[in-house]
Amino acid sequence: MPVIEAHILEGYSAVEKTRLSQALTQAVRFVVPAPDEAITVMLHEYPSKDYARGGQHRAPAPALPDPEALVLEYLRLMEARELSAAQAMLGDGFEMVFPGTGAMKTLEELIAWAGPRYRFVTKTYDAVEAFQGDGAAVVYTRGTLAGEWPDGTAFEGIRFIDRFEVRDGKITRQDVWNDIAEVRAS
Amino acid sequence: MPVIEAHILEGYSAVEKTRLSQALTQAVRFVVPAPDEAITVMLHEYPSKDYARGGQHRAPAPALPDPEALVLEYLRLMEARELSAAQAMLGDGFEMVFPGTGAMKTLEELIAWAGPRYRFVTKTYDAVEAFQGDGAAVVYTRGTLAGEWPDGTAFEGIRFIDRFEVRDGKITRQDVWNDIAEVRAS
Amino acid sequence: MPVIEAHILEGYSAVEKTRLSQALTQAVRFVVPAPDEAITVMLHEYPSKDYARGGQHRAPAPALPDPEALVLEYLRLMEARELSAAQAMLGDGFEMVFPGTGAMKTLEELIAWAGPRYRFVTKTYDAVEAFQGDGAAVVYTRGTLAGEWPDGTAFEGIRFIDRFEVRDGKITRQDVWNDIAEVRAS
Amino acid sequence: MPVIEAHILEGYSAVEKTRLSQALTQAVRFVVPAPDEAITVMLHEYPSKDYARGGQHRAPAPALPDPEALVLEYLRLMEARELSAAQAMLGDGFEMVFPGTGAMKTLEELIAWAGPRYRFVTKTYDAVEAFQGDGAAVVYTRGTLAGEWPDGTAFEGIRFIDRFEVRDGKITRQDVWNDIAEVRAS
Amino acid sequence: MPVIEAHILEGYSAVEKTRLSQALTQAVRFVVPAPDEAITVMLHEYPSKDYARGGQHRAPAPALPDPEALVLEYLRLMEARELSAAQAMLGDGFEMVFPGTGAMKTLEELIAWAGPRYRFVTKTYDAVEAFQGDGAAVVYTRGTLAGEWPDGTAFEGIRFIDRFEVRDGKITRQDVWNDIAEVRAS
Amino acid sequence: MPVIEAHILEGYSAVEKTRLSQALTQAVRFVVPAPDEAITVMLHEYPSKDYARGGQHRAPAPALPDPEALVLEYLRLMEARELSAAQAMLGDGFEMVFPGTGAMKTLEELIAWAGPRYRFVTKTYDAVEAFQGDGAAVVYTRGTLAGEWPDGTAFEGIRFIDRFEVRDGKITRQDVWNDIAEVRAS
Repeated sequence: MPVIEAHILEGYSAVEKTRLSQALTQAVRFVVPAPDEAITVMLHEYPSKDYARGGQHRAPAPALPDPEALVLEYLRLMEARELSAAQAMLGDGFEMVFPGTGAMKTLEELIAWAGPRYRFVTKTYDAVEAFQGDGAAVVYTRGTLAGEWPDGTAFEGIRFIDRFEVRDGKITRQDVWNDIAEVRAS
Repeated sequence: MPVIEAHILEGYSAVEKTRLSQALTQAVRFVVPAPDEAITVMLHEYPSKDYARGGQHRAPAPALPDPEALVLEYLRLMEARELSAAQAMLGDGFEMVFPGTGAMKTLEELIAWAGPRYRFVTKTYDAVEAFQGDGAAVVYTRGTLAGEWPDGTAFEGIRFIDRFEVRDGKITRQDVWNDIAEVRAS
Repeated sequence: MPVIEAHILEGYSAVEKTRLSQALTQAVRFVVPAPDEAITVMLHEYPSKDYARGGQHRAPAPALPDPEALVLEYLRLMEARELSAAQAMLGDGFEMVFPGTGAMKTLEELIAWAGPRYRFVTKTYDAVEAFQGDGAAVVYTRGTLAGEWPDGTAFEGIRFIDRFEVRDGKITRQDVWNDIAEVRAS
Repeated sequence: MPVIEAHILEGYSAVEKTRLSQALTQAVRFVVPAPDEAITVMLHEYPSKDYARGGQHRAPAPALPDPEALVLEYLRLMEARELSAAQAMLGDGFEMVFPGTGAMKTLEELIAWAGPRYRFVTKTYDAVEAFQGDGAAVVYTRGTLAGEWPDGTAFEGIRFIDRFEVRDGKITRQDVWNDIAEVRAS
Repeated sequence: MPVIEAHILEGYSAVEKTRLSQALTQAVRFVVPAPDEAITVMLHEYPSKDYARGGQHRAPAPALPDPEALVLEYLRLMEARELSAAQAMLGDGFEMVFPGTGAMKTLEELIAWAGPRYRFVTKTYDAVEAFQGDGAAVVYTRGTLAGEWPDGTAFEGIRFIDRFEVRDGKITRQDVWNDIAEVRAS
Repeated sequence: MPVIEAHILEGYSAVEKTRLSQALTQAVRFVVPAPDEAITVMLHEYPSKDYARGGQHRAPAPALPDPEALVLEYLRLMEARELSAAQAMLGDGFEMVFPGTGAMKTLEELIAWAGPRYRFVTKTYDAVEAFQGDGAAVVYTRGTLAGEWPDGTAFEGIRFIDRFEVRDGKITRQDVWNDIAEVRAS
């Protein structure tokens, strides 16, 4: 039954407001076992002149980009080996950890590490999950990997999960787990 | 600057309301780049007699348990090998997938699978993340494993991540990824 | 989907608040074809010290009595011939019109008028409807009459409808229509 | 003093919103003895993109037609003997009961019944009352009948009351009481 | 932390709404020691068709003029000796009291009184304060006077304070205190 | 017609809430020419557990003392020559300016200055006005002085006005204007 009223400054797009409505709905469902139908979200938009903090009118901050879309675009660029475009999506202090690596800071390190492991790899996504973590949006993608081993034989159906942190519209961290070693060992 | 008013039925505990306030705050921060300080959440509680849907008063549904606490308790029971207590926390249709396994449905299967892999394993948690997914609360735990190989030698610092789904207060799915095979292979 | 917030002074009973919630729900349904389930009413109660008009705190006026209950009690008293108790429920300027009468002002007139028409009459109610009219609550009761003609023969199943106006907890007008003449004539 | 906030989807006309405001005002006055002046109704309109239930945006249902206007139009058509237009305003399962009739289902039955009773009849309305009943809007019209008896003599000033039920913009029931038999018998 | 929602009829200008927002913010700070940043004011504007009192839609009253701007204009006109324009800003029943005078009702009286006191005087404003008093807006101006004594010698730096009452956009009272006599006496 | 909803933390006394309601009402009247009756203030109180900023529950700050009462008490103490109690009501950096003085910082300076001016003085108050200024509450008191000149002759009816600034419950500034020199000179 909960009814959520969100008072926001005017200036967000319909898509951004849908994202907000759905995030608020999920927040309620995280605690209250209401059926979806019973959770109402109503957005009150205020033009700047109808909103004041400390007696000063305020302008809305631009919405944050959708971290899920942003991560999927990054993964697409990586799979297409459009490395400079992918690089541009990374924030200051970016780090990534893959199975058996320490913290890598550049895509070049990643390419070098992957070289002896597989000729190429493509991802099939089973699910993508995004939510707000402490100080960063978090995106999980999971599914299966297909590709070719260095010897040219094919593989497929290897489980993976990636975790990304997104701050201010930039990817600042990637952590990867998968069953490649498990499969190779078998 | 967003101000969130949440209208809920009376009957939730202070802890449950804190969880709700924080989930709503995170929902806002997922879309609007407001500083924490600038996001206000105000809960309006209605005793049943002050709330009606379709002209009928309604009683509040009990809050859902905190899925993070629930998953951590399950993991504690598993590590302590209190299997029947752990089993009681699993919901109908429970499935789990570990590296190299298909879908397992019972803890006995898990124990049998783990036998040749390690004598025992303990987890050190780097982080736990919980949020509402589609139709289930989702909990991610990640960190490092320590333990002994079947030959009695020790290992430690092996990365893992677990993903849990929690529905109606029961764990209904667990997916596990880790670097055990990577480390053993090296 | 409509959500109604009613801000009222503290001091109304649960029953009075239920009446208000249902009246508000009906008001919405009078205009918006929402299913019952989708109309939410939330009452905000303010203790006098949290409410001010023109800078002055205000006390709540006592709720009006339920006009439906009040009219049914009046009809019960009339049927039981407890005339003085019935009389006490009538307001200043009370008038009643029955088939073929002009405006009558006292119950004695009514008794006199009824004398040659029937020995006694009892009412079976099919429905009672109450709502707020212009300046008065209006109650309609309808159903069938049974009783005995002056010659002692019985009758039953004669349609009637009564309309009452209630102001400040007193009945101020009654209008009656029925098929007694129709039936007698046949 | 009550203040009513009604949160509705955008799309209702000014006339429909006036009807809603007045129905809500009457609902309050049904329970709280506030002077008219002291009852405030404020409508919050939400464009579809600012309203979500279960995370889904919703479109407003078209408002229900004003049942009072609808019934008066039907009565006008009947008096003008525009029967097919009147017929078009009746809903499935329509029934009507007049003095001395059982349930009639067609206007033809009504015309046949009225034939031996009067040559024609016109209505003068003293009042029309409309409100939301259980599952239907209810309209009462009352006043006096004038016309000619079958023998051509005139009559006038005969009290009547009609009760109508309106569902989904169609009249589904009419009940009529009047003093015709009373007058004829006298 | 206070959040103020002000529900007003549509039709006020941005400047008028800023004045309202700031007055509401000051009202909060008069009682609650919140930092400016923590006081939020949100204005809900209702077009006439979305607002009803007693079931009647209402039009907004035009905003009152800013009394501070109005008083400063009056003082400017007086200093420029544009007496008829200044006179036009005075309301019915205007009275003024200067040091040593009784109640004066016309600007001519004032000019006559000032004649033997100084050749001319100009004001330097240290501060202007405006707020709503009982039944009138009140404006205080204070600062220092400069000018010439009747003998042509100059003076400056003499403290003054003026108090004005403004009703319905007209100045209805002025009270003046200053140190002219103190300075002359010394 | 304006309706003001003030959302505040629970913990303010009835008197403090009355002060807040009245200050908000005055703020509205400063801009909107609504009759007193038509300005409604409704306070929503939130216990700490129902209010969060940045996901953290907050406790209410104690209300500021009524600056009017505080200044009147200070004036009473001064008139009664209870100097140490009066001194205790002054804040850091306190300054006062009287006719013909520069900035004085201590009550001793004031006493010394007044010595040759009058034997004693008492105040009759015509009005006290208090409102929130920039960073301080401001209190104006005005009326007439009575007392004895140094030569023992009595005086009365001399106009005065005092302006006080109050910060954090302490008086930090006093400015005084009066007609003593005007009267003495005449």
